[in-house]
Amino acid sequence: MKLALGVEYLGTHFHGWQCQKSNIRTVQQVIEQALSSVANQPVRVFCSGRTDTGVHATCQVIHFETNIKRKNKAWLFGGNVHLPSDVNFTWVKPVDDNFHARFSVITRQYNYKIHNTKIRSSIIATHSLWEPRKLDIVAMNKAGQYLTGKHNFSAFRGSLCQAKSPIKNIEFIKLTKHDDNILLDIKANAFLHHMVRNIVGTLLKVGKGEKPIEWVREVLNSKQRKQAGPTAPPQGLYFIRAFYKNI
Amino acid sequence: MKLALGVEYLGTHFHGWQCQKSNIRTVQQVIEQALSSVANQPVRVFCSGRTDTGVHATCQVIHFETNIKRKNKAWLFGGNVHLPSDVNFTWVKPVDDNFHARFSVITRQYNYKIHNTKIRSSIIATHSLWEPRKLDIVAMNKAGQYLTGKHNFSAFRGSLCQAKSPIKNIEFIKLTKHDDNILLDIKANAFLHHMVRNIVGTLLKVGKGEKPIEWVREVLNSKQRKQAGPTAPPQGLYFIRAFYKNI
Repeated sequence: MKLALGVEYLGTHFHGWQCQKSNIRTVQQVIEQALSSVANQPVRVFCSGRTDTGVHATCQVIHFETNIKRKNKAWLFGGNVHLPSDVNFTWVKPVDDNFHARFSVITRQYNYKIHNTKIRSSIIATHSLWEPRKLDIVAMNKAGQYLTGKHNFSAFRGSLCQAKSPIKNIEFIKLTKHDDNILLDIKANAFLHHMVRNIVGTLLKVGKGEKPIEWVREVLNSKQRKQAGPTAPPQGLYFIRAFYKNI
Repeated sequence: MKLALGVEYLGTHFHGWQCQKSNIRTVQQVIEQALSSVANQPVRVFCSGRTDTGVHATCQVIHFETNIKRKNKAWLFGGNVHLPSDVNFTWVKPVDDNFHARFSVITRQYNYKIHNTKIRSSIIATHSLWEPRKLDIVAMNKAGQYLTGKHNFSAFRGSLCQAKSPIKNIEFIKLTKHDDNILLDIKANAFLHHMVRNIVGTLLKVGKGEKPIEWVREVLNSKQRKQAGPTAPPQGLYFIRAFYKNI
């Protein structure tokens, strides 16, 4: 039997998604522990997209296989009881044998949150990037449009990226502002390692007036990582959702 | 010279406001360290109202005296550089010699946040109380109105309370709901120890349908702590602001 689950987490106190040696706390590790407790036997999970240290998720999708029979509620609520307070399941659904949380993904959506105020806010420090310089989000929005569509995103590719191809298709990039909070919403078929954070770091240079809007097109066309802005920090990044054909 | 400052903090990783022996991390301790660094000499601060372990503040007000001359910006921005990420200053203002952050307060305002959903959310777990049972906030609002005005609040008084009198004057209690988030907004001349959290714990019993609206009046009139509901947990509580005559 194969089950898919939605997973939400605050990444602040996790060393990213993937299980690592010994005493490193990762999301995968605590999830496998929780599901193994519910199943009363070891459970191995697969995720739709690994996240880095400090990155959050509102609907990471995972799947696992088991021959243990439990009601859906038992996996969902029982799992949540065994999970620490900074991670929780949001839904559970039986899926076909050919479903794979990673390989069946059609599109992925991320958000990046920026708190644009002169004074930093400690209450949202773990949930948002603080930027004291007033950002021009009209310019950032325009610059972002150069990146939509199918492109070679080598200029925004992290050095540790293991993707086979740097060509990805961005469905949309939208920036909106509510009071002092700026939200960047981005959806693509897939992302290279650090791609969203490198795009944010690049658009921030436009938003601060350090670079013109058209510079972002030049960065894209250069296909060189050194041409783009720095990697934006993890605390503003949220893996919003992985989309599939049937779930 | 006497200065007042607004202080914001996420209480999650603090053992409350007040300095304690040795290695206990408190808000007062990190603030005095930061201001002492800016002043280059020891600084002692006084606050408008101490908060407990895990309780947050958006505008705690403090004052301190110093003979060191610094620009306001130096105290504010310099102070913020020396503070850890979970506490920050929001403003600074010179005040009269007779100003006292605690004794000059006219009114204090608190908020209590409740996340009212079947499934807990790890992303807001440190910022809100999770309540899975659907709450009747119309009933909670009505019940809260029994508590407004000048009363003996002994029924809502924590056992460690050091206040001289249990008689306080609540200006308003308002509950509002936005999507799944319930906000309780309360303002009074002063609060007894755990008074807001005991009021919340009592109103929750009404919201869950365990007690009728009028029961809250009986609790108030009993003047007995054992008649009221349990103390609501700290992570939903925010000290919003202390109000003074001139600042």
